[in-house]
Amino acid sequence: MRTSIATVSLSGTLTEKLTAAARAGFDGVEIFENDLLASPLTPREIRARCADLGLTVDLYQPMRDIEAVPAELFARNLRRARHKFGLMRELGADTVLVCSSVDPEAVDDDALAAAHLRELADLAQDFGVRIAYEALAWGRHVSTYDHAWRIVEAAGHPALGTCLDSFHILSRGSDPRGIEDIPGEKIFFLQLADAPLPAMDVLQWSRHHRCFPGQGGFDVAGLVRHVLRTGYAGPLSLEVFNDVFRQAEAAPTAVDARRSLLALQEEVGTAEAKQPPAPLTPAPLTPAPLTPAPLTPAPLTPAPLTPAPLTATPAIPAPVVPTGFAFAELVTADAEPLTGLLGALGFARTARHRSKPVDLWQQGEARILVNTGAVVRRDGAQLAAVGLESPDPGGAADRAEALLAPVLPRRRAPEDAPLDAVAAPDGTELFFCGTGRDARHSDWRADFEDVGQPSAAPGVRRIDHLALTQPWHHFDEAVLFHRSVLGLDAEDSVDVADPYGLQRSRAVSNPDGTVRIALTVGAAPTDDTVHAQHIAFATDDVVAAARRFRDAGAPLLPIPANYYDDLAARYEFADGELETYRELGILYDRDEAGGSLRHCYTRTVGRVFFELLQRDGGHRGYGARNAPVRLAAQHAVRTASALVGG
Amino acid sequence: MRTSIATVSLSGTLTEKLTAAARAGFDGVEIFENDLLASPLTPREIRARCADLGLTVDLYQPMRDIEAVPAELFARNLRRARHKFGLMRELGADTVLVCSSVDPEAVDDDALAAAHLRELADLAQDFGVRIAYEALAWGRHVSTYDHAWRIVEAAGHPALGTCLDSFHILSRGSDPRGIEDIPGEKIFFLQLADAPLPAMDVLQWSRHHRCFPGQGGFDVAGLVRHVLRTGYAGPLSLEVFNDVFRQAEAAPTAVDARRSLLALQEEVGTAEAKQPPAPLTPAPLTPAPLTPAPLTPAPLTPAPLTPAPLTATPAIPAPVVPTGFAFAELVTADAEPLTGLLGALGFARTARHRSKPVDLWQQGEARILVNTGAVVRRDGAQLAAVGLESPDPGGAADRAEALLAPVLPRRRAPEDAPLDAVAAPDGTELFFCGTGRDARHSDWRADFEDVGQPSAAPGVRRIDHLALTQPWHHFDEAVLFHRSVLGLDAEDSVDVADPYGLQRSRAVSNPDGTVRIALTVGAAPTDDTVHAQHIAFATDDVVAAARRFRDAGAPLLPIPANYYDDLAARYEFADGELETYRELGILYDRDEAGGSLRHCYTRTVGRVFFELLQRDGGHRGYGARNAPVRLAAQHAVRTASALVGG
Repeated sequence: MRTSIATVSLSGTLTEKLTAAARAGFDGVEIFENDLLASPLTPREIRARCADLGLTVDLYQPMRDIEAVPAELFARNLRRARHKFGLMRELGADTVLVCSSVDPEAVDDDALAAAHLRELADLAQDFGVRIAYEALAWGRHVSTYDHAWRIVEAAGHPALGTCLDSFHILSRGSDPRGIEDIPGEKIFFLQLADAPLPAMDVLQWSRHHRCFPGQGGFDVAGLVRHVLRTGYAGPLSLEVFNDVFRQAEAAPTAVDARRSLLALQEEVGTAEAKQPPAPLTPAPLTPAPLTPAPLTPAPLTPAPLTPAPLTATPAIPAPVVPTGFAFAELVTADAEPLTGLLGALGFARTARHRSKPVDLWQQGEARILVNTGAVVRRDGAQLAAVGLESPDPGGAADRAEALLAPVLPRRRAPEDAPLDAVAAPDGTELFFCGTGRDARHSDWRADFEDVGQPSAAPGVRRIDHLALTQPWHHFDEAVLFHRSVLGLDAEDSVDVADPYGLQRSRAVSNPDGTVRIALTVGAAPTDDTVHAQHIAFATDDVVAAARRFRDAGAPLLPIPANYYDDLAARYEFADGELETYRELGILYDRDEAGGSLRHCYTRTVGRVFFELLQRDGGHRGYGARNAPVRLAAQHAVRTASALVGG
Repeated sequence: MRTSIATVSLSGTLTEKLTAAARAGFDGVEIFENDLLASPLTPREIRARCADLGLTVDLYQPMRDIEAVPAELFARNLRRARHKFGLMRELGADTVLVCSSVDPEAVDDDALAAAHLRELADLAQDFGVRIAYEALAWGRHVSTYDHAWRIVEAAGHPALGTCLDSFHILSRGSDPRGIEDIPGEKIFFLQLADAPLPAMDVLQWSRHHRCFPGQGGFDVAGLVRHVLRTGYAGPLSLEVFNDVFRQAEAAPTAVDARRSLLALQEEVGTAEAKQPPAPLTPAPLTPAPLTPAPLTPAPLTPAPLTPAPLTATPAIPAPVVPTGFAFAELVTADAEPLTGLLGALGFARTARHRSKPVDLWQQGEARILVNTGAVVRRDGAQLAAVGLESPDPGGAADRAEALLAPVLPRRRAPEDAPLDAVAAPDGTELFFCGTGRDARHSDWRADFEDVGQPSAAPGVRRIDHLALTQPWHHFDEAVLFHRSVLGLDAEDSVDVADPYGLQRSRAVSNPDGTVRIALTVGAAPTDDTVHAQHIAFATDDVVAAARRFRDAGAPLLPIPANYYDDLAARYEFADGELETYRELGILYDRDEAGGSLRHCYTRTVGRVFFELLQRDGGHRGYGARNAPVRLAAQHAVRTASALVGG
């Protein structure tokens, strides 16, 4: 199906919006009237610009407060409409959205509404324009799609049809099955938006009003299926009013938007690939950290990502769900603070890259690459890349590419083994790996030569999860990316109180929990308290692991005594158990099924810290209940350091 | 009455919160459990800290999910409660908040709830603790205050009372008159919060959940009156969960909070002043721009303002509403770009400060001070001070002081006439003036010597309004400040679409419209598109004024042609009228009564631009409908300048 996006869904000037929509591969746009009014381009120039970009103008919108008003007012409305129809002819738009009236002078009279819309459609027909009448959820007298359709049906004019909008339908709780009673040829337009379900989650409401399909709680796919059964042949168009998108850069938002429609089409079974226009100004891809590039990408302010031009794949390749973490790569100018922590955790340096200053530190199946070749700020140690074990690395990359993930060069250097890699919305590079397998080109270990053996002592077994702070404007995009591109499942989002603002966190994981990533976001774009990334290591004995770490001379994050007094009030512990936790700074959580989580934290180096974590009884959480205490403790350490340092 | 604030209402560590509450003059605090858990201070140390600060611990909160549960679970709850009661004894808190249960295991059985609460109260009594039982608006079975009271009454225990919370009561739409049926001595606590009324205004919801009384739409004063009639003698306490306050600095938020309670007490007639503890670390007041100070305050990141210690005034002095603008003062390192604009607008330099590099530019009753003595960034021309004509400058300053406005030194320099001045939340200095009057010390003109005459030509008559961008975290505080301190009326807030994010604007004005200030705020703390401040000048003939300006060689902001095509669709104009507007870049708006507004804009210098504005037929608006077009045009000019410059 053709895809379209309303200009109001994107940030910037009209020109910026059109360019972003075209580069993301949309077929057309809805032109939002206010965007046109504010543009220095004439309607004819806008039409030409759209044509140059390969975009059709699928809708002009909105016209408001037209119908069921006193005669004199309706005459003025017709006069206004005549102007707009003339403008639409110049613009090359043949369909206009008419919203059900919110005018206080409008009367509750369906026959009058139908008569007015018929007269409007008569006028529109003279200009070659079609009217798509839509029920606003807050329309004064017409607020449901079936009511709007009854009026359209009563008017009985060939230039008059209805516009369906998933937000207006689903936010009212209307039953979308009734859509199938409308003849498809009378559905002139379909606007899609999702929205979070209004829970007592205010932070969620605060970021969103509507969002792209798959980012909220509506069954948008179900609604689309009903529409398709009517024979509707118009475009799938996104109309999303969202305060965050208004602020974000248009280009990545447009890619996010189109990815949401691709995933939606996959879900409803109408996926088909299209060749988007070539990028207008081919932006360089972000440099790969393994190559000593002049500058590592700063994940919190990602460079605008050029969407990968779609190859002519007939459909989106099926998801290839990752089966584990192959490695996590940290970049730093000074390896010692990081490797000191890793050594104290029981990691050993086991291999070295054949041509670059990259070391592999390993313990059990946990592998950390420490890269000192990339240029970062002195205090900027950060996680730059993640290796994901994949049953089919090439297939995973093909799917990512079809879903508009920026594809990275297969080889970081000529002598390197070719690896499939894409960039996540926060700039993190994701490598699809077949570690140790004789796969076609996915064994990253081939680039490394062994220099040591991992410790035989029991300790860290593997990476349990990663926690990655996302750019403020791209949190929902990140969740949709991990769900659609990687095929991970998303859990509900959780609010966590930091002393200086609420954070929000949403975990994505594979079914057996061997890949887990907690995506987090701060309360505001300026929130610099949440830049931290961390790697949680799974252990079978967190107490022993914590003791070993401490005995190696490395301090664990100190946890306030009040926290342990609260644990004592909350749970019963075996003799001495709580004292051990208190002594070591181990946090504790228990789920409703009795599963327990015990975890503790190292200090932070640059943006990175480590967690030791023991899960028992099938506990699948991340210790969200403990996060406020952990965050406050990290602030306290930082403040103390600043005082000592200053 | 005693005033208190919940620590959850403020940002930071527990210590930061306590200090801020004390410095703002609160008598006590509610300790939020999570703040205690995250604190490195023991309960005893917290108690001592509070005592040092002159704060009582009025409430420990919350205990959740206690009552009406299966016996085994209730036993565990009692065990938990015993721990907490012990803790409260150490903390010196004698009242604990128990929220109605949201536990899925809780049953709908008022008798069981009463029995459990009675048992809990028995235990509490042993520790000298009182239980204040509160209905959460989303409680599983108990969600209204009268229901909670019925259970408390049925339990009939001296250590059990109810807690009333204005948010839970008013958000449910409960009738607060029923409060008067509760004996005052059984109302153990009163928590106050306001909230915006949930309209289709998502930006508003996005900034707030609850807010301080007077900042939202609830009739909090009405509710308090009902509570006082019961004989309630406990504190008025603010419990406000607000995502913005969580991020903002605690000290100014605490001042804002206490100001809201002072204004509330004035409204309900229980105002009484109290002597707050002396500021702990007396912060220097912001430097006065007229003095060539080392650095002007940057209004967008205001320095933490020390609350003025309250003198022992018996009550808050009555409002002294300003009657006009005496002057606006701009500071700049390079006067020429500003004075060039002022000259082209028809202003003349009419006076010069006797001792400082400050010029008075005047036209009609519009007076602009241009100060080149303060140090600002080269491109940082900005509005630093406003003179407000006042019928009683001293009284206005006394009221401001009683309402915790930071009072500025009366004389900027030893030879200056003494003037009453306070700082607004954005750092703007407000001078209460009696221009030309022989008032006790309010004629700022006495410091100036005449150097010229204002132009006799008709043109600008006076300052119509100021538009001032507020610091993101302090927008609601600014509105409450202007309402309570200055006695201005606030209009509804309006959302305005900037190309890169929504702005919000709320106008405050005096009854005859001779003082109008549009307070605006951007979509996010990082939004640098909205730092602009502007001064709108009233004229009787905007077309002539615009022509004169243009003929003086100064460009007006160019407005896109599409805007005028839309005007043509919307309204009928006299022959040539629209063409004139189009030629000059004049924007047009008409209100429902037929009143019209015509206005145009100069280019921006530093952060400042000017508007020429003609009101006819009693139009009272600010052209919010035109603001998106103006904002886009300003972006276009900026982008073009950047391209030329680069």
